[in-house]
Amino acid sequence: MSDEKSFHMTPEEFRRQGRAVVDWIADYYQRIESFPVLSRAKPGEIRAGLPPEPPRQGEPFEAILEEIEKLILPGVTHWQSPNFFAYFPANASGPAILGELLSAGLGVQGMLWATSPACTELETHVLDWLVGMLGLPDKFLSRGPGGGVIQDTASSASLCALLAARERATGFSSNQRGCDGRLVAYTSSQAHSSIEKGVKIAGLGRENLRLIEVDASFAMRPEALAQALDQDRRAGRLPCFVCATVGTTSSNALDPVAAIGRICQAQGVWLHVDAAMSGTAALCPEFRHLHNGVELADSYCFNPHKWMFTNFDCDCFYVADRKALIETLSVLPEYLRTRASESGAVIDYRDWQIPLGRRFRALKLWFVIRHYGVEGLRHHIRRHVELAQRFAAWVGEDERFELAAPAPLNLVCFRHRGGDAANQTLMDRLNQSGHLYLTHTRLNDRLTLRLAVGQTHTEARHVERAWKRIQEEAARLS
Amino acid sequence: MSDEKSFHMTPEEFRRQGRAVVDWIADYYQRIESFPVLSRAKPGEIRAGLPPEPPRQGEPFEAILEEIEKLILPGVTHWQSPNFFAYFPANASGPAILGELLSAGLGVQGMLWATSPACTELETHVLDWLVGMLGLPDKFLSRGPGGGVIQDTASSASLCALLAARERATGFSSNQRGCDGRLVAYTSSQAHSSIEKGVKIAGLGRENLRLIEVDASFAMRPEALAQALDQDRRAGRLPCFVCATVGTTSSNALDPVAAIGRICQAQGVWLHVDAAMSGTAALCPEFRHLHNGVELADSYCFNPHKWMFTNFDCDCFYVADRKALIETLSVLPEYLRTRASESGAVIDYRDWQIPLGRRFRALKLWFVIRHYGVEGLRHHIRRHVELAQRFAAWVGEDERFELAAPAPLNLVCFRHRGGDAANQTLMDRLNQSGHLYLTHTRLNDRLTLRLAVGQTHTEARHVERAWKRIQEEAARLS
Repeated sequence: MSDEKSFHMTPEEFRRQGRAVVDWIADYYQRIESFPVLSRAKPGEIRAGLPPEPPRQGEPFEAILEEIEKLILPGVTHWQSPNFFAYFPANASGPAILGELLSAGLGVQGMLWATSPACTELETHVLDWLVGMLGLPDKFLSRGPGGGVIQDTASSASLCALLAARERATGFSSNQRGCDGRLVAYTSSQAHSSIEKGVKIAGLGRENLRLIEVDASFAMRPEALAQALDQDRRAGRLPCFVCATVGTTSSNALDPVAAIGRICQAQGVWLHVDAAMSGTAALCPEFRHLHNGVELADSYCFNPHKWMFTNFDCDCFYVADRKALIETLSVLPEYLRTRASESGAVIDYRDWQIPLGRRFRALKLWFVIRHYGVEGLRHHIRRHVELAQRFAAWVGEDERFELAAPAPLNLVCFRHRGGDAANQTLMDRLNQSGHLYLTHTRLNDRLTLRLAVGQTHTEARHVERAWKRIQEEAARLS
Repeated sequence: MSDEKSFHMTPEEFRRQGRAVVDWIADYYQRIESFPVLSRAKPGEIRAGLPPEPPRQGEPFEAILEEIEKLILPGVTHWQSPNFFAYFPANASGPAILGELLSAGLGVQGMLWATSPACTELETHVLDWLVGMLGLPDKFLSRGPGGGVIQDTASSASLCALLAARERATGFSSNQRGCDGRLVAYTSSQAHSSIEKGVKIAGLGRENLRLIEVDASFAMRPEALAQALDQDRRAGRLPCFVCATVGTTSSNALDPVAAIGRICQAQGVWLHVDAAMSGTAALCPEFRHLHNGVELADSYCFNPHKWMFTNFDCDCFYVADRKALIETLSVLPEYLRTRASESGAVIDYRDWQIPLGRRFRALKLWFVIRHYGVEGLRHHIRRHVELAQRFAAWVGEDERFELAAPAPLNLVCFRHRGGDAANQTLMDRLNQSGHLYLTHTRLNDRLTLRLAVGQTHTEARHVERAWKRIQEEAARLS
């Protein structure tokens, strides 16, 4: 043992405090419904409780944990509450939390195969599992020229896809020479904002992103895409990237991937499919039609950290041709050379992503799949869809309300027929009540409420109460 | 309570399994020196132990944890071993691991202030603390026009800085129109590979990155930078970004930030300072000179996840003018609008980074600072530097070896005088022995060994044994 002076937590203290944190979390989940879902903190209120200077001497861990309760919790919006219906679910689960804990404890870097072979190989393996689990095309399996990798978010996955597309379209010269204003990208007007952000980051410029119009279901119109591509080609521009969405953020619209894919293939343009939330539904055979046409895609992503009980961050990103991705993102300084890499027998995931470092995120995904099993995951996904469909039916039966878009899965877009002001008041009152939390979008230029069912512990009673509360607030409107 | 069928882990099971994982981690640290530091797994060996198909039905958590021991550990390179001297430290600690656990348990998204005010405000607060702790200029404090944010890595921080620089240099038009081949970036030939990667991603092109030559200490020559800037201006190009490094990855060289800063200021070019590993040393007043000149920088980053006992990922990124960063990275779809954001009274960190989502990483940083206190952190940083300096002295006294670069802090670059083959053999045998792990670089085109002291539990005895083992293997060389 050590005889050096040390301020480190001893293993015995780690055991003791670790148990305290585990118990704190278990208690938190047992009382989570007692908190207002949306935090009531005012701007600056949390900071006002924190000391202006850091401590000079260390403090006991008990004191820190006490302040979580007192200082932090009032500023928490409870994403894991079963009454959270806002944005998208970012659902966590026991096995995922413990996988994250183990990953932090091991503290390995997976930037290269050699820096922890298990970190790379478990990731490749679990991502291969998911190809089968979601009915994705075999070309995304690592045994061929493709493969999968965990990214932090769909934003980063889409950016990596765009960069590889940019490189492929320029004969792998844009990395060397930079962008020259000719490259063009395409997505629907309903696509996630990260596509616009990516186009800016990658140096294409917002002017070179075409937001293709959508049909009445908010899905991309393939003929409008074909037209835009033709027009750009005729103008001497270089179409390089199309992003189709399976389940848009705003309204869960499903772009017609097969029709879009045929156009991209004919034109030789990279097709990326963003199925961030909805991809998880394909675990169930009855929803697998979502992935029709994905066999024509060059890349695909979905987020277990949205709807598959795996805490953030965990986006699964697949490419059909990993060489295009690696050639785009690889930089090899001497200090990162290893014999294993040079043998070509291993994957170095640093070349599949923007950052260099990476933690052992496959652990939590592996834990989730093993804890639930494929059937357990299916059960809960089905249940969420069923609850959302039940909610949609109630909306349809209440003449004060209308559905604002098709609800193919677990997201229901609806509105009060009283107009924008009524819907804003309704939403504000519901959220201020603390009983539930839901957010909005605009569809056909009208304020629209969104109810996303996907939190781990959301059950029938929570959706029933949400609807009851919505009806109560609607009654107060007039 | 629920009467629905459920496959979720119950709170009681979470308590039980959580304790098991906490104990597993505590045990791991107690036996960590018994493992070969560098994994001996062969390519494919870890995967071969995993079943080809995912389980249809869930499995007991005990079975999963057992397989960590059997299937995963043999494929782990033990970054947290006190005998890990490779690459850079990525040191973790008890309070950091528990902060990560708590963050996973709360499972909040900090993309907007409103989606969890505490997640944003604690981050801003702790990053303000660190400005004082590291002696950084006040312009990085959030109370003025600047501020700090947690990024995943220095790679991403540098990319964000480059993008803001690109935008500022083009009058905020590169996001709209894209890059046009005129923009140029500058860094030293010893800078981290992420700068080259960033220049490619951002659409500038590798041809428009100038790798400025270095002096005998591997630090950037400011007069060479000035010359390159002039040359590009005369050729009609648009210099936009300079990255100076405080502690290069290869040899820990310290670029002369003040001299570089004066040039950048005169030319109106964005200066980013990358202090990924070495910035932490500035916790100690005697090393604060590292940051001389940072007052001239537009942005700065360092990684608590390298040398400040905070598990990956946690890079602290500061800008002097947050408006430039936000204008560069902001995209505002309707579904992300909130009243708090529109009031202008709050920070929405999604506009400070590439991904949209973000987890509650400030918790672990807060836990670390409170557990150790400023004095505790200083103690361990000083000790690491002292041990590295002791090692450097031993190298200097052994005529078979030579120092290959100045060792200002905790990284020692050295080589056996027998040439590249001798050094390669030495390194391979040491790493294969499992007693320690160190990696290499090339300096002046000669293979050079790197010994980085910075793992949480590295003490005098570990560095002494490393040197003893190096001497033993050197004796076997002839």
